[in-house]
Amino acid sequence: MDQMVGTGSLCFSETPFILESASVVGTKEGEGPLGSCFDVIGEDDKFGADNWEGAESSLQKAALTLALGKADYKAEEMRYLFAGDLLGQTIATSFGLKSFEIPLFGVYGACSTCGESLALASMTLAGGYADRVAVVTSSHFASAEKQFRFPLEYANQRPVCATWTVTGSGSFVLVSAEEQKQKKADVLARIAGITTGKIVDYGIKDSMNMGAAMAPAACELIATHLADFNRKPEDYDKIVTGDLGTVGQEILFQLMRERGYDITKVHEDCGMKIFDGDSQGTGAGGSGCGCSAVTLSAHYLPMLKSGELKRILFVPTGALLSPVSFNEGQTIPGIAHGIVLEHVENKK
Amino acid sequence: MDQMVGTGSLCFSETPFILESASVVGTKEGEGPLGSCFDVIGEDDKFGADNWEGAESSLQKAALTLALGKADYKAEEMRYLFAGDLLGQTIATSFGLKSFEIPLFGVYGACSTCGESLALASMTLAGGYADRVAVVTSSHFASAEKQFRFPLEYANQRPVCATWTVTGSGSFVLVSAEEQKQKKADVLARIAGITTGKIVDYGIKDSMNMGAAMAPAACELIATHLADFNRKPEDYDKIVTGDLGTVGQEILFQLMRERGYDITKVHEDCGMKIFDGDSQGTGAGGSGCGCSAVTLSAHYLPMLKSGELKRILFVPTGALLSPVSFNEGQTIPGIAHGIVLEHVENKK
Repeated sequence: MDQMVGTGSLCFSETPFILESASVVGTKEGEGPLGSCFDVIGEDDKFGADNWEGAESSLQKAALTLALGKADYKAEEMRYLFAGDLLGQTIATSFGLKSFEIPLFGVYGACSTCGESLALASMTLAGGYADRVAVVTSSHFASAEKQFRFPLEYANQRPVCATWTVTGSGSFVLVSAEEQKQKKADVLARIAGITTGKIVDYGIKDSMNMGAAMAPAACELIATHLADFNRKPEDYDKIVTGDLGTVGQEILFQLMRERGYDITKVHEDCGMKIFDGDSQGTGAGGSGCGCSAVTLSAHYLPMLKSGELKRILFVPTGALLSPVSFNEGQTIPGIAHGIVLEHVENKK
Repeated sequence: MDQMVGTGSLCFSETPFILESASVVGTKEGEGPLGSCFDVIGEDDKFGADNWEGAESSLQKAALTLALGKADYKAEEMRYLFAGDLLGQTIATSFGLKSFEIPLFGVYGACSTCGESLALASMTLAGGYADRVAVVTSSHFASAEKQFRFPLEYANQRPVCATWTVTGSGSFVLVSAEEQKQKKADVLARIAGITTGKIVDYGIKDSMNMGAAMAPAACELIATHLADFNRKPEDYDKIVTGDLGTVGQEILFQLMRERGYDITKVHEDCGMKIFDGDSQGTGAGGSGCGCSAVTLSAHYLPMLKSGELKRILFVPTGALLSPVSFNEGQTIPGIAHGIVLEHVENKK
């Protein structure tokens, strides 16, 4: 049976599978190093909507539609939907997904939302509560700047430690072990286990340096995970954080060293994969709920499917701030969620 | 084993239990009809904080501390925490709960958050993923007015169909069947099943009439639940919605009649229980994540424990709007989550 491991970790005996996924991104992401890997690159960043929030909703709608299509399922065959985004009251999700009419668990974990949603979705499948569920998360550069910093028209300057919110939505269709057996379809990966993060606050107050705010939470999550599963960093082909960027990565390396771990050889960061900071002017890297979701979908899942990667720890990272908390002088606590993804020998 | 029922419902065979709960409210709630039932009534609505958001965080901290104390558990004995609130990026939760250091699943379902959190918490327990988890939700009149409408200093007028956001936080400590057996403690109620809601949008655009926006989602949830469980309204001692208020209740009755159900004899609404609209000037009733949470904790759970109520369907209702979506002329979609709560014959 399913197993509680250590503090906050689960190791699934009947592992659920990621059957299919989809990534829909904006123009800048399309011009980046992973440009050729995404399913859809928008012609402009409005995605047919009148405003930025509507554009983000369009992204979610497109990503879920595409993932369902690839998996050959109709919306009504999904028992539950786990979804969220960065905007206040997660409106990109509410307006993007309402037409699908799938029972919804709304999730908020800032940029860690993709990890939190995948965790809850896999618990739901492995617990026998569903055979088919879907996950959707998104972010949009323009809606996030408007929400957290300044309207784009203000043209404010950004320090080099700032990250660039990814315009993109990733969607995942997950199935239970039983459903996979019946469907006999190839899968992208298995979700072998999860580690659920706590809020970690090192007192960072600079909203232009999210990497520093989130690195302590990433460190806590990875160290807890390795202890809970009694593993070493080398037991993973990659340990992939969500959006720490170059500044956050350096802090993570140092914090991990203080905990007795060297992860420099296996660590990668979705935020550093998706943009070329030097040529694209994206500062320390990409960020946002969409960053880890589309990078997982377009870059890591294909490598897990092919067997190029056998096992990775996927760790989306979130910065728990709002414009109100920032303006009131509050710190920026971080949180992270860990997902163990493993290669599956497909029959075909 | 646990059983999938109909579309989006679950019927737990190893039912989890609500072991203890706590309610902490503001002065106005203390002066209302349920005033004598709450655990703590604040002396003023700032709860020792410098600002309204901080006050709401204090509410959450007090509620969880009290619920853990009643249950005789330390924070580190909780395997997971399910929590959320109404504020953008759910900052009342992030800052209120970070010091507990419990692995956190952040949830957003607007005012339905209490139902969504209880659903995920009971799935986690019944699935064998934890023996002890906690749930916290909150709202605060002043932080909600500032977030969704106008700062209090503006002193705007309110139509009679408007509801009054409850200042309060409810917290619940839930245990697995196995843990209850070992602990041999009296419990408040069992969670026999859940029904997870979809987003329902009838096109309401008036943010001063949340009852009308949420009633269609409540109707959809209740009708789906009754069909999924093959039950009639009379199979419940009460069907309790979260915060429809007088206007929303009337609409719910009519919509249910169109679906072939008469729930007028068994329906109650937490928003109509917590305030006396005539004498307290609270319009159509109370609302907010805190409304259903503190009313469940202070009013319904004691009646379930005593056996005065044998079985209720608890249906927190949420309005999925943000100030941005409202100002952009969007509709206000609704969502609802259903929890079946049953009396347990305690040994003592």
